[in-house]
Amino acid sequence: MASFHPLQLALDMTVKILETNLRLAESFATIMNVQRNRGETAAAGSRERQSGDGSGAAAGENRSNEMSGAQKFVYRFGAGKADGSAEMRELLGGKGANLAEMSNLGLPVPPGFTITTEVCNGYYANGKKMPEGLVDQVEESVRYIGQTVGAMLGDATNPLLVSVRSGSRASMPGMMDTILNLGLNDETVEGLAIRSGDRRFAYDSYRRFIQMYSNVVLDVKHENFEEILEYYKHQNGYDLDTDITADDWRTLIEQYKAVVQRKLGKPFPQNIEEQLWGAISAVFDSWNNARAIKYRELNHIPESWGTAVNVQAMVFGNRGDTSATGVAFTRNPSTGDGRLYGEFLVNAQGEDVVAGIRTPQNITEVARVEAGSDKPSLETVMPEAFKEFVAICHTLENHYRDMQDIEFTIQEGKLWMLQCRNGKRTTPAALRIAVDMANEGLISREDAISRIEAAQLDQLLHPTIDPKAKRNILTIGLPASPGAASGEIVFSPDDAEKLKALGKSVILVRNETSPEDIHGMHAAAGILTARGGMTSHAAVVARGMGRPCVSGASALRINAELKTVTASGVTLKEGDIITIDGSTGQVIQGEVAMRQPELTGDFAKLMEWADVVRRMKVRTNADTPRDAEQARKFGAEGIGLCRTEHMFFDTDRIMAMREMIVATDTEGRRTALAKILPMQRQDFIELFEIMQGLPVTIRLLDPPLHEFLPHGHTEIVELAQSLDIDPATLRARVNQLTEQNPMLGHRGCRLAITYPEIAEMQAAAIFEAAVEAGKRTGKPVVPEIMVPLIATKKELDIIKDIIVRVANDVQLATATKIDYQVGTMIELPRAALRAGEIAETAEFFSFGTNDLTQTTYGISRDDSGAFLGDYLKAGIYSADPFVSIDTVGVGELVKLASERGRATRDKLKLGICGEHGGDPASIAFCETIGLDYVSCSPFRVPVARLAAAQAAIASKKASNRKLEDR
Amino acid sequence: MASFHPLQLALDMTVKILETNLRLAESFATIMNVQRNRGETAAAGSRERQSGDGSGAAAGENRSNEMSGAQKFVYRFGAGKADGSAEMRELLGGKGANLAEMSNLGLPVPPGFTITTEVCNGYYANGKKMPEGLVDQVEESVRYIGQTVGAMLGDATNPLLVSVRSGSRASMPGMMDTILNLGLNDETVEGLAIRSGDRRFAYDSYRRFIQMYSNVVLDVKHENFEEILEYYKHQNGYDLDTDITADDWRTLIEQYKAVVQRKLGKPFPQNIEEQLWGAISAVFDSWNNARAIKYRELNHIPESWGTAVNVQAMVFGNRGDTSATGVAFTRNPSTGDGRLYGEFLVNAQGEDVVAGIRTPQNITEVARVEAGSDKPSLETVMPEAFKEFVAICHTLENHYRDMQDIEFTIQEGKLWMLQCRNGKRTTPAALRIAVDMANEGLISREDAISRIEAAQLDQLLHPTIDPKAKRNILTIGLPASPGAASGEIVFSPDDAEKLKALGKSVILVRNETSPEDIHGMHAAAGILTARGGMTSHAAVVARGMGRPCVSGASALRINAELKTVTASGVTLKEGDIITIDGSTGQVIQGEVAMRQPELTGDFAKLMEWADVVRRMKVRTNADTPRDAEQARKFGAEGIGLCRTEHMFFDTDRIMAMREMIVATDTEGRRTALAKILPMQRQDFIELFEIMQGLPVTIRLLDPPLHEFLPHGHTEIVELAQSLDIDPATLRARVNQLTEQNPMLGHRGCRLAITYPEIAEMQAAAIFEAAVEAGKRTGKPVVPEIMVPLIATKKELDIIKDIIVRVANDVQLATATKIDYQVGTMIELPRAALRAGEIAETAEFFSFGTNDLTQTTYGISRDDSGAFLGDYLKAGIYSADPFVSIDTVGVGELVKLASERGRATRDKLKLGICGEHGGDPASIAFCETIGLDYVSCSPFRVPVARLAAAQAAIASKKASNRKLEDR
Repeated sequence: MASFHPLQLALDMTVKILETNLRLAESFATIMNVQRNRGETAAAGSRERQSGDGSGAAAGENRSNEMSGAQKFVYRFGAGKADGSAEMRELLGGKGANLAEMSNLGLPVPPGFTITTEVCNGYYANGKKMPEGLVDQVEESVRYIGQTVGAMLGDATNPLLVSVRSGSRASMPGMMDTILNLGLNDETVEGLAIRSGDRRFAYDSYRRFIQMYSNVVLDVKHENFEEILEYYKHQNGYDLDTDITADDWRTLIEQYKAVVQRKLGKPFPQNIEEQLWGAISAVFDSWNNARAIKYRELNHIPESWGTAVNVQAMVFGNRGDTSATGVAFTRNPSTGDGRLYGEFLVNAQGEDVVAGIRTPQNITEVARVEAGSDKPSLETVMPEAFKEFVAICHTLENHYRDMQDIEFTIQEGKLWMLQCRNGKRTTPAALRIAVDMANEGLISREDAISRIEAAQLDQLLHPTIDPKAKRNILTIGLPASPGAASGEIVFSPDDAEKLKALGKSVILVRNETSPEDIHGMHAAAGILTARGGMTSHAAVVARGMGRPCVSGASALRINAELKTVTASGVTLKEGDIITIDGSTGQVIQGEVAMRQPELTGDFAKLMEWADVVRRMKVRTNADTPRDAEQARKFGAEGIGLCRTEHMFFDTDRIMAMREMIVATDTEGRRTALAKILPMQRQDFIELFEIMQGLPVTIRLLDPPLHEFLPHGHTEIVELAQSLDIDPATLRARVNQLTEQNPMLGHRGCRLAITYPEIAEMQAAAIFEAAVEAGKRTGKPVVPEIMVPLIATKKELDIIKDIIVRVANDVQLATATKIDYQVGTMIELPRAALRAGEIAETAEFFSFGTNDLTQTTYGISRDDSGAFLGDYLKAGIYSADPFVSIDTVGVGELVKLASERGRATRDKLKLGICGEHGGDPASIAFCETIGLDYVSCSPFRVPVARLAAAQAAIASKKASNRKLEDR
Repeated sequence: MASFHPLQLALDMTVKILETNLRLAESFATIMNVQRNRGETAAAGSRERQSGDGSGAAAGENRSNEMSGAQKFVYRFGAGKADGSAEMRELLGGKGANLAEMSNLGLPVPPGFTITTEVCNGYYANGKKMPEGLVDQVEESVRYIGQTVGAMLGDATNPLLVSVRSGSRASMPGMMDTILNLGLNDETVEGLAIRSGDRRFAYDSYRRFIQMYSNVVLDVKHENFEEILEYYKHQNGYDLDTDITADDWRTLIEQYKAVVQRKLGKPFPQNIEEQLWGAISAVFDSWNNARAIKYRELNHIPESWGTAVNVQAMVFGNRGDTSATGVAFTRNPSTGDGRLYGEFLVNAQGEDVVAGIRTPQNITEVARVEAGSDKPSLETVMPEAFKEFVAICHTLENHYRDMQDIEFTIQEGKLWMLQCRNGKRTTPAALRIAVDMANEGLISREDAISRIEAAQLDQLLHPTIDPKAKRNILTIGLPASPGAASGEIVFSPDDAEKLKALGKSVILVRNETSPEDIHGMHAAAGILTARGGMTSHAAVVARGMGRPCVSGASALRINAELKTVTASGVTLKEGDIITIDGSTGQVIQGEVAMRQPELTGDFAKLMEWADVVRRMKVRTNADTPRDAEQARKFGAEGIGLCRTEHMFFDTDRIMAMREMIVATDTEGRRTALAKILPMQRQDFIELFEIMQGLPVTIRLLDPPLHEFLPHGHTEIVELAQSLDIDPATLRARVNQLTEQNPMLGHRGCRLAITYPEIAEMQAAAIFEAAVEAGKRTGKPVVPEIMVPLIATKKELDIIKDIIVRVANDVQLATATKIDYQVGTMIELPRAALRAGEIAETAEFFSFGTNDLTQTTYGISRDDSGAFLGDYLKAGIYSADPFVSIDTVGVGELVKLASERGRATRDKLKLGICGEHGGDPASIAFCETIGLDYVSCSPFRVPVARLAAAQAAIASKKASNRKLEDR
């Protein structure tokens, strides 16, 4: 059970990222690949694309099927008007709503109707029974289709053929079932043969229908039919399906029907109505097939949404050289280029475009030339249809005010629109399209800002694996810190440092990391751990440093002694090269081609627009000059959290720190601290210089002291020797400091209460640095000293007294006036509750939502892996609460603390510095409760800037709506 | 620092308990002893009692010193009226307020005045300067005393002598300074000699004054003078002070003055006014001497209270055979017997009564006869004064409506009242006095209930060490579970079981205990640990079992391998006998005499009255039939918390549990659980039978699974063999289950989410047992199934579904209808915040305030020892929040959850089952927020019954006051 979680999360993230960011075809290939990895059938992968199979029909009258008093289950479309519209996505599903919208726009849509998602929900609520009245509405609507196209379902001489397709509110590509060519039986197939004048087409369509219907509705699997077909081809010496003649298909149809009879003990249904209801039920049933359930789980799509069913007249792109089928985007989804982009095949079915058996042709002549293709473009071969298609593309883009993803079929020269929807695109494309459309006046700048998924920006800021590169995936862990890196495997931080010094790129591979590994993490190009979640030490530190990281790759078996790591049966040793992709969680054998980040003009432009509309400031969490510089480049407006403890792990400092910890009295501690003071002061001088007068929030020492001591026997003996004390004494001190629940232990301000001299030293370092940096830069530094883990006002009072005393001493000694603030992390529920009185002492609050989430939920981040997977699966959490803030629980405490704090001190500065400070959904929440700033790791700063702008826009809209509602 | 904490807490509890419960003389002796242990001088121990030194004066006119417009710093008393009254305790201190009250009652009080506590606070606020106007008010009031007694301060022929004494709001016996006989110098001593006709008395008084004043005001210590006196007696061959003549004293006075001159370089002050202000300042200064600060810390007395100063005319009990001095209680403070009880000495000073140099005489003839004393009673030797004294005792007791502790002096036949206050008493005495007074009609039954400190009852329920027994104290730990026990030392739970089986009484000595030790704790007569706080595993389990426990005795050095324990330089080995006193934290070498508990008629009567007025029900936390039976005897009205995991630690069960934990799939777990089911069912049948239809709340499995697995190498190998699995596999499973912060880990309802089969088994056991027990007793069982550690409604929904399904199965199988409820612990801040929606599913809430305190404060109980001492010392906590609920933080969450829960479901049953359920202050809080019941360990049930009654009374009074205020 426990081991399920990392993989699931990884899949979740992988699927999401891939779906959103890669070109469509790539997407499908990869999803199919993922599905194969998951041991599921990938056969469904291309189903949605089978819509290109189209279905032929002429325009008829579109009469609404409204019946007095009865509930409306069925919405018609086609022939220039429709019952529904694009707004009715919830009721009609995405496909149905857009078919209706296109009909209303007067575009050529084969007529059809949509059975609503409400029917689906009712079907499940009532033990899979169709609601009363549905049969009548469907029959009437089928007659409407028939009248429109001039054919009739079941008519032996002029049969109507329809497709029956799913269509839910959210796109669930290939997850549910589809039936094409419905309307054929032994009798109507003959009618179709005569009427189409193409016997082979008619029999081929019928055998396809039998195969598809049997598979989906009757549970007689594909393989049965494929075996027969393969055997037949072998017997007759055929290589390709195209070798098969009309009569061959007829023979095969008999064999197909026989296999159904054998498997089910009854014949393949000849009754067309039975076929229709079988297909409708099957689509509803497919809403709850294992594949769809898993997909919904991964994408947080509620079961309650249900799917609609679209029944539509078939059109055929495979009726000769005047027929074709294709897929297009109104702009290039990969680059954002503003020109029409797409592919088609003459005399083909939609699935052929995707399947890649024939090479598709370009739609425009320009694209053909650019691609160097010798196959003619649609522009050339069907200039009339092309012209109409281009006009429709413009109409749709202007109408939807977004780039459209379009499916079409040309049947005997006549263009039919089968689907349109907002197209998925890569992040660079999204940026370019948004900026272009704003410049074109199609959308506003605020719209442009809101169009970009803020989290996507992350990938622009790191090297990424070339999407065309082949990936030899060893295993998938959690995508813990974005970007990709290749390097030699090392198993210890010291080895990482050594090899890095030799100019090598290294990947540090550990079961988990600890603060003692920081130098190795710095030295490494990337970090890979077998344990730990998205907010494990490795993940948090890596994100802070901007290092790619894959965590919780639980399939890895690491032997640090032998310096080997095994995954998927492959054993790698130190020095072997791997690549990790921190954006997908993939661990790849060998080196893989990379793309370097480019902060293009579109990116800069959008950020500029975002900064204009944003209300909240964006600061960074930075502990080192390097982090601070990086963050400034990304536009950080100050430091929201400088964790001073990270400064103590350098080899030269940790010894002084350890000396302090093992000291038995205040004097001993002071002596050791005196050694740390100049180093700590220097740290702050550098940070202050880089931040050039921008605000810097420094948190006093937070972690429990045992984190600074070694725990292994050998290390203790070594340290005892260096410190010149008895190993037994050191061991006793280590034991004394060991805690049951260190997260809830002797840490945070509790250290400063028991060892005030630590706070004194840190305050002195800060104030002395402020004076010095102010002199050097000419910009006065206003340090904000933050006291961690406050639960009571009195704690803060006591520590503030120390800080004020030290400030006075430094001011006196340097004859310099220092402006400074003393505030606190609000990271415990009690602090949030008592915020009113704490604000009497605190001049600012910074919400430490990592710890606040831990304590509010009673969940240790380090240990949540054991059940988090089950929790997401069961829908207990819709998202990991450490990634996206729990607005109604943890969020209520944040809101309440903000209100109580500001009631006491109306100018109280409020910020957030937990991991949530870089999460767009959480940033949106921060905007609604009026925080002054968010603070996040340097590489999240652009994300936060955009998310803050989006939040400000949403907030403005919401308050406008409120005004209107008055 | 860390090691300070347990000792401090121990002292705190020891001082409190001793002060309250032992006879006065014993109290003082013990406090002095404790002070000696703390390395402080015990000389101050008897100071307060020196008030018996009295001071003589006749009645004069009591003119108020009100001055138009000026602030009133000084309140006069004596001669039949006073400026103040007993209500003004905060301003005048306890002594001053009661002297005023006695004056107002017309009792003979030597005249004097009180300088208010406000002056003390002003004195400190203004850099130890007396406020403007104080000098005038004091001078005027000194004149008033002089006029009243017919003498004058500094008058050479008729000098006034006064005492200058501290007196704070709370009694702080001997902690602050006192000056007697002020008013003497080289000149006035001659006037006193002549006027008193007793030169020796005059010179003795003067030399006493020099010594006391020099010590307290001039910082020339006692020892200087005592050396001189000893040398003088040695030189002159004197044995006793009484051998010293008037002329000897005169010589000694010169030597005393010379030593002051030598030490200070200036003479002993002869200016009486200088003496007076020196004494007043010294008393104020003594408010902040080290002794007083420590005492305040231990007794949670705020520094801001300050002390008053009482200046009063001296009266003398040492003016011959018609003079006397004594101490009395209006009832017997040890037994509660209704008759006057006290002691006196003829021709003596107050301190002689306490010092024990002369044997005191009984006050009443009855007492003399009962005591078999041959020394005459006061009733016999001074019948007139006795008669007046008895009348005054009646007046005072009727006036104060409580037993009075009185100090008096008879000077030459004239009775003077020097102090009265509500007397401290033992718990049995408190019970008897309260019940008697209610029966006498002096107080109401509700008053009687409110008079008893509920926590005191605890000691009536356990064996206690005979107060007369000698205690050879090895060390002091925390008084973790009340009662005392003697037994042979054992170092392992298995040894405890073995020796217990041989009929031996054993004390289990461990560094700390874990759930695996439960059987040994059951077998032991008492538990002693070197680590852990008042709410450590050992403490909680011991209180639950009613076993005496001393925890956190950090001075112990335990060598479990060699089976030795060392403390205070004494090394004891297995089999050596020790005694632990769980009420004081003392660890005593050897066996000590015990007193067995007696639940007297007074106890039963008071409980009966309490049950009438109480609103909240009192349930018990009980996991075993033994606990349940004990709790029923103590009046429990159901089980509020049955922790099912405790049932799994029995040797025969833990193997099945371990089998379940190491199982790799659901089937394996089910197989193991099937073995546990019948045992678990049997547990519940027994509990249900004992509770005879009373409600029983059963909590589903709560602790993380690794608590059931061994961690040592040998144990793991052994277990692997018994389970027939590979030790490496078992080791891997143990590692997998090991958590960074188990308190925040995979436990509580999270277990039931990942392993639903555990909840299924437990639900089946509960329902099957309910059916069976219902049949056997004829009283239908209504089990309340409690799901622990809920943070979201969805968790509870999922687990409730399981429970309901099992209930339906059992009802069907047994053809019996079972009434039951499903509810949850509210023990996480998020659950409290989301209580509104959780109550949609939960039928009851039980507040698990242990964990709620841990998460709200972000403090692990197990680890808080490292800083708790510092926190109490710094005044950050006024009490350990795990002992007494934090009403404004944790309490707000409890209140909020109650309100939100009841807003959803108005009949929602609310209770508390944390350790706070047995704490009177916390019970009072529970009453104010309207909980339905409290649940506590069996031995706290009587305490909770009384505390709940007191809370109901207080609540009624508060709402009456509110009505009046309208």
